[in-house]
Amino acid sequence: MAPKSKKHRRSKKSGLPPGAIVYIGDLEGDVQAIQRITESPDGVESTIVSDVQHLQDWASWSGLNWINVDGIHDTELIEEFGRAFQIHSLILEDIVNSEQRPKVEEYVDQVFLTMRMLDHRSTEESDTGEQISFILGPTYLLTFQERPGDIFDPIRERMKNPESRLRTKGNDYLLYALIDLIVDNYFFILENIGDELESIEEEFFRDQDSLSLQHLQQRKRQLQQFRRVVNPLRDAISTLYRDENPLISDSTRRYLSDVHDHLIQVQEILDTHREFCVELRETHLALLGNRTNEVMKVLTIIATIFIPLTFIVGVYGMNFDHMPELHSRWGYPIVWFVMVLCALGLIRYFRKKNWL
Amino acid sequence: MAPKSKKHRRSKKSGLPPGAIVYIGDLEGDVQAIQRITESPDGVESTIVSDVQHLQDWASWSGLNWINVDGIHDTELIEEFGRAFQIHSLILEDIVNSEQRPKVEEYVDQVFLTMRMLDHRSTEESDTGEQISFILGPTYLLTFQERPGDIFDPIRERMKNPESRLRTKGNDYLLYALIDLIVDNYFFILENIGDELESIEEEFFRDQDSLSLQHLQQRKRQLQQFRRVVNPLRDAISTLYRDENPLISDSTRRYLSDVHDHLIQVQEILDTHREFCVELRETHLALLGNRTNEVMKVLTIIATIFIPLTFIVGVYGMNFDHMPELHSRWGYPIVWFVMVLCALGLIRYFRKKNWL
Amino acid sequence: MAPKSKKHRRSKKSGLPPGAIVYIGDLEGDVQAIQRITESPDGVESTIVSDVQHLQDWASWSGLNWINVDGIHDTELIEEFGRAFQIHSLILEDIVNSEQRPKVEEYVDQVFLTMRMLDHRSTEESDTGEQISFILGPTYLLTFQERPGDIFDPIRERMKNPESRLRTKGNDYLLYALIDLIVDNYFFILENIGDELESIEEEFFRDQDSLSLQHLQQRKRQLQQFRRVVNPLRDAISTLYRDENPLISDSTRRYLSDVHDHLIQVQEILDTHREFCVELRETHLALLGNRTNEVMKVLTIIATIFIPLTFIVGVYGMNFDHMPELHSRWGYPIVWFVMVLCALGLIRYFRKKNWL
Amino acid sequence: MAPKSKKHRRSKKSGLPPGAIVYIGDLEGDVQAIQRITESPDGVESTIVSDVQHLQDWASWSGLNWINVDGIHDTELIEEFGRAFQIHSLILEDIVNSEQRPKVEEYVDQVFLTMRMLDHRSTEESDTGEQISFILGPTYLLTFQERPGDIFDPIRERMKNPESRLRTKGNDYLLYALIDLIVDNYFFILENIGDELESIEEEFFRDQDSLSLQHLQQRKRQLQQFRRVVNPLRDAISTLYRDENPLISDSTRRYLSDVHDHLIQVQEILDTHREFCVELRETHLALLGNRTNEVMKVLTIIATIFIPLTFIVGVYGMNFDHMPELHSRWGYPIVWFVMVLCALGLIRYFRKKNWL
Amino acid sequence: MAPKSKKHRRSKKSGLPPGAIVYIGDLEGDVQAIQRITESPDGVESTIVSDVQHLQDWASWSGLNWINVDGIHDTELIEEFGRAFQIHSLILEDIVNSEQRPKVEEYVDQVFLTMRMLDHRSTEESDTGEQISFILGPTYLLTFQERPGDIFDPIRERMKNPESRLRTKGNDYLLYALIDLIVDNYFFILENIGDELESIEEEFFRDQDSLSLQHLQQRKRQLQQFRRVVNPLRDAISTLYRDENPLISDSTRRYLSDVHDHLIQVQEILDTHREFCVELRETHLALLGNRTNEVMKVLTIIATIFIPLTFIVGVYGMNFDHMPELHSRWGYPIVWFVMVLCALGLIRYFRKKNWL
Repeated sequence: MAPKSKKHRRSKKSGLPPGAIVYIGDLEGDVQAIQRITESPDGVESTIVSDVQHLQDWASWSGLNWINVDGIHDTELIEEFGRAFQIHSLILEDIVNSEQRPKVEEYVDQVFLTMRMLDHRSTEESDTGEQISFILGPTYLLTFQERPGDIFDPIRERMKNPESRLRTKGNDYLLYALIDLIVDNYFFILENIGDELESIEEEFFRDQDSLSLQHLQQRKRQLQQFRRVVNPLRDAISTLYRDENPLISDSTRRYLSDVHDHLIQVQEILDTHREFCVELRETHLALLGNRTNEVMKVLTIIATIFIPLTFIVGVYGMNFDHMPELHSRWGYPIVWFVMVLCALGLIRYFRKKNWL
Repeated sequence: MAPKSKKHRRSKKSGLPPGAIVYIGDLEGDVQAIQRITESPDGVESTIVSDVQHLQDWASWSGLNWINVDGIHDTELIEEFGRAFQIHSLILEDIVNSEQRPKVEEYVDQVFLTMRMLDHRSTEESDTGEQISFILGPTYLLTFQERPGDIFDPIRERMKNPESRLRTKGNDYLLYALIDLIVDNYFFILENIGDELESIEEEFFRDQDSLSLQHLQQRKRQLQQFRRVVNPLRDAISTLYRDENPLISDSTRRYLSDVHDHLIQVQEILDTHREFCVELRETHLALLGNRTNEVMKVLTIIATIFIPLTFIVGVYGMNFDHMPELHSRWGYPIVWFVMVLCALGLIRYFRKKNWL
Repeated sequence: MAPKSKKHRRSKKSGLPPGAIVYIGDLEGDVQAIQRITESPDGVESTIVSDVQHLQDWASWSGLNWINVDGIHDTELIEEFGRAFQIHSLILEDIVNSEQRPKVEEYVDQVFLTMRMLDHRSTEESDTGEQISFILGPTYLLTFQERPGDIFDPIRERMKNPESRLRTKGNDYLLYALIDLIVDNYFFILENIGDELESIEEEFFRDQDSLSLQHLQQRKRQLQQFRRVVNPLRDAISTLYRDENPLISDSTRRYLSDVHDHLIQVQEILDTHREFCVELRETHLALLGNRTNEVMKVLTIIATIFIPLTFIVGVYGMNFDHMPELHSRWGYPIVWFVMVLCALGLIRYFRKKNWL
Repeated sequence: MAPKSKKHRRSKKSGLPPGAIVYIGDLEGDVQAIQRITESPDGVESTIVSDVQHLQDWASWSGLNWINVDGIHDTELIEEFGRAFQIHSLILEDIVNSEQRPKVEEYVDQVFLTMRMLDHRSTEESDTGEQISFILGPTYLLTFQERPGDIFDPIRERMKNPESRLRTKGNDYLLYALIDLIVDNYFFILENIGDELESIEEEFFRDQDSLSLQHLQQRKRQLQQFRRVVNPLRDAISTLYRDENPLISDSTRRYLSDVHDHLIQVQEILDTHREFCVELRETHLALLGNRTNEVMKVLTIIATIFIPLTFIVGVYGMNFDHMPELHSRWGYPIVWFVMVLCALGLIRYFRKKNWL
Repeated sequence: MAPKSKKHRRSKKSGLPPGAIVYIGDLEGDVQAIQRITESPDGVESTIVSDVQHLQDWASWSGLNWINVDGIHDTELIEEFGRAFQIHSLILEDIVNSEQRPKVEEYVDQVFLTMRMLDHRSTEESDTGEQISFILGPTYLLTFQERPGDIFDPIRERMKNPESRLRTKGNDYLLYALIDLIVDNYFFILENIGDELESIEEEFFRDQDSLSLQHLQQRKRQLQQFRRVVNPLRDAISTLYRDENPLISDSTRRYLSDVHDHLIQVQEILDTHREFCVELRETHLALLGNRTNEVMKVLTIIATIFIPLTFIVGVYGMNFDHMPELHSRWGYPIVWFVMVLCALGLIRYFRKKNWL
């Protein structure tokens, strides 16, 4: 569960006016960067925008217009964006709240989508990736990332190809392509977890110590966190492709429904992994029961055979003056005989009980 | 679970006419206070109202009109309110029943909402905060609190700013702002519980004693109580922003849907915390099994090695007259040799069984 | 679970024509009584009706008309009622089947509702109260109770007040008032169970014996039985206030929705109590595991320390002729030294393992 | 679960054309019989039909026409029926598949219903009764039973009464009456299982041996099987009375809804019985834990008291030449004193730990 | 769970354009084969097609046209099919992704269905069969199989019969027939698993060792995998027969609804088998608890009787000079008498506790 570090605390917003733009997250410093990718006569042009003012003429744009912002902790910049693109203050609030659960919201001529982008680094338990928010408008697609660096380079590459659907199909298709890439990356993370689980199982069958149990629990928590990323996203995507929003074309809708399918598959793999964890724990407990039972049986067999015998030899170790058996010629062999008989009887009893 | 104290007992209403205004709660005394906040030409004006009669001209009011009542145990006063504002007797009954579950009810020109307001003090297990009821009418917002003292000061502060949306957007927006503040406070409580759980886990990994188990259970119950506060509230808010009630404007509806989102997030954190509790208990049981198994193994190894040896030395402690071994020159060393062999054999057996 | 006594057996109807009026229950004898309460010029008039024939002019009745029947085992009388009020045979069948689950059924100009009325006596496990059936017609309300004696006296009292809503609002409001009273009584029963559970928990924390476990299970069964009374009733009431049945006025509908709310609250308390039972059992099991572990540790520590020592003293109790140590001047103190060393070593080992 | 005997194997149909009439079941031989019951001027007439050809004039029939077939393993005969009554091949396939789950299917002018008829003999675990299929046509009701002999004699009896609703209400009412009888019989079986469970519980509280556990499990499986018979049937009946099928009159619909109610009740009793099984097992495990704990405590107390004492007496059984205590006048009584002290100390310790 | 081998890894698609045709599976080599089955004047004609170009005139085809492709790893060929039959790139992507979950998708004049075909070989745990995809067009049915060799020979055989519904009912009926055959095969696999479970149970009741536990778990995982094959398929088939798709005739719809019924039955058997697994594990744990308890009791009885006796004989083995009892004439018999008394007392105690 990993309770949040102090900076993440949602409560620092308590009492502020609704729609207050307060950054909730643990990044600081000056990593903010705005990149704009547009179509130009010569192909695709990528520019670093220094000032949001330069973007105010969005109503006249056409074709591909992707503006990507790295770093959401400069709330002033986000507010400038809000004014430039007429974004509702509740959207702005969600963009800077890095703890937001995935959701989609439709406004008059904007579609807002927020989700989590997992990274290869995300196999570490506590990392639930970074938040990415999309705003699809009539002539643009805005993306807001928490941190610089992303997994979108393949898309930037494909954009350079004038034949690519990315060039011919508009900003809504670009939105789809980015989502699809992020979801494809989920499969990668899942495979990593799968490998991890496999190695835990191997370790488990080699040696049943509590270490693997701890390990297993960490994986289970990671899967639960993952689930909380995937489930609401699936619903959001479903809303997106079912609603008759004019910003999204019918052909893109078909592709979004494919992403929805992939998310169902991600959920199924998550469930399989979870069941695997639960089963491993159950098997562990059952085997532990078996083992304790076996240990008990060894103890019981040895103790039950020798304790009575020790009593018998104790009897003849007593120092009474009058113990006729002690002076008998056959006393010693008879005692041995009795003891062997006694032991054999008990062994037979254990055989019958199927303990040997 | 904390069964209710006698005063809370719902059953004292049994047999009374429906809509009977009977206070269910444990407060007494004379803490009743009525505060009215209105807009005046000079800004916001706050007055203490001594008599409900002064409020009867509500039909002619305009702009912001917030009337807050502290203390609901003076049922006569509540009935006066009922007559002054034409409130349905079922609403009055719910206002004074401090055990009411959160709900919303829509009447011809009133919206009634009741929910629980949790306080920073509410980290104590048995405290489920105080009940607060809202009645939104055409020209007013009534709030009824159980106890004097609330968490609304930030809102009273923001009201003084003439630019604030609180001033421009009417009583329905004020209703939203109050709800939002209460829900924001839920996050605060949840973070406290999260810290508590974290420290229980730390304590648990330092020392597995039953104390932490007791502690854990208390937290789990608190989470269950919390859930029963949040779940019906979420449904009520959902009803509120989906229904086409003319008392609530479209822009406020959008904000209410944001509160709804927050409540879903509260639920998710609650679930995470609950899973955490369940998992900790499971890990406790699995580790306990491990530990019992280990204890058993130590006992079994020691007992199984020494019990047979003790038997052997017992044999030669017997006082039979005729025990030829006793008089043999090599008897003593041979017995030692046999015993060492026997012990080594058992140790090898335990090694093979992987117990050592 | 308490399998039914022979008389309750549902199977005795097997093979009879559907709608056959066969009493299923365990009452006998002559306790049948018909009471009619009507409005008269002088107020409310209560008469004991000796013959169903006197009721046949119901079409001309007006105002309050409540006919209450105590005792449903006289199936002939029930059939007479059926003829007089044109009641469908399936309703008659349900009225006399005291094992009927709560339900509502709407016929052309009758509403049939059956539910269970719990009594203060109902804290006993096996008692699920008595069945009460309501038939609301255009001009009358019929109630059929299993046993004489009910909890409706407060209503009979309130009827005498001409200002009472009972007098002004018609038979459908009377139906509501009776249901509300029964449901209010559920809270009373629940509080009793809550007290019982509280005392079980106290007993449990004083002494963990199996007795309380048995007790706990009985309470859990009782809660399950209660649930089976409440759940279908909640659905029935919901049907009643949602359907546009002309026999029930809009204002009464509002009150019925309030009863529905109360039933949801009853369910929530039931669930809380159930969770309490489950948790107590879980805590019991976890504490039992702790205790067994502790017992094992004490045994293991004592046995592991003394078994090797006993072996050592056994060695020097052997009677071999040639045991040089025995004759050594320092043999005895050296053995003691070795034994103390051995014991201290084991104690240190247990300390390290955190068993001491 | 009772994996099927070879003859039941569904797989023998694999690869055959869909709608292939292959008998799946374990009956053989020549028990086929066709009985026709019709209304005649003199009352009800029952004839044994030797040839399906005689039934081809069904379009001209009127009134009650019930044709019952005992034995479905003669697939040729079933196919003849199919041709004579124009039955869809998928229906025929379902009729002869005795493993069919209960369902209803509506064709242009036929309603097909298949369900299981349980017998008094059905208290044996592996018996899930026999399959019975109904085809309700415009002028007839066909029933196909697996085995000769059924529980319908009360209906055949009631038919003779010209006043009976069976005579006046047509074939759809007859269908209802048959279903109702079968469902009534379910109650009988359930009561038998209830008695069985009661006796298991009694046995359990007398003696907790594993035998009852085995027994309990068998009952639980039987209840699961029963559930799989009842659940789909409930849905089928619900479909039947909700759909606006012209073959079923409105008054019969009302009766079918009553059967639906009975099936819900059957399910509730099933659930109660299942919970009872689960609880008994849980109580068994908890009591077993208690008992193991108690056994451990006895062992630990005895061993912990006597093992150190045995060590002490062992010390003074050593044969060292120089043991001054041995020659002291008070050595023996002092050792006794020490041992008693030691024992008392341990007993006090156990008292404090509440083990005694 | 069996984490996927490297070749199956879904992640190798990450970053490629959506709809990229990348084979996900573990087959290689040159096993591709295209078979076309059409009606000809002389009956049914089967040809091996060498080039997809020959199939481009599909718009003019009539009657039965089944084109089956074995091997989907030649993505180029699949793309050629895509161009020839105008298949959406998302379909092509799904065809070559052998990890695709069963689903149905409807395009303008194509219906796409993908599912898993299990083989008799599929009783091995890790085998989830091969994927088969169907594309039903206006004049053709395309099937894509992963591997050469299938279970469709009975259908190819039945096609030769000109009376067969396969010949008269068109490509949609053929689609149904193929699905039905695959689903029928599921029953076969289920029966194999049932046999396996039966033998595990038998083995279990002969000897409770951990081997069977391992075995059981494997079967449970296999059932889970099976479930993930069946559940989405059931939903897909349900979509297929409910939607008003013009490519599927009404009569075929009826047959598809029958397949749907079969899939529900498959699910029920799967659930029964799963419950069986869970129950067997539970019984195992309960019996293990019983057994451990029994082992403990034997140990406790023996140890508790003999440890005190051993102490007593140890007392009189001490070598004190002054032990008057040792020299008494009756010392020895009295000690025996005391010991026998002591043992009998303990035996009586155990009897009372019902341990003997």
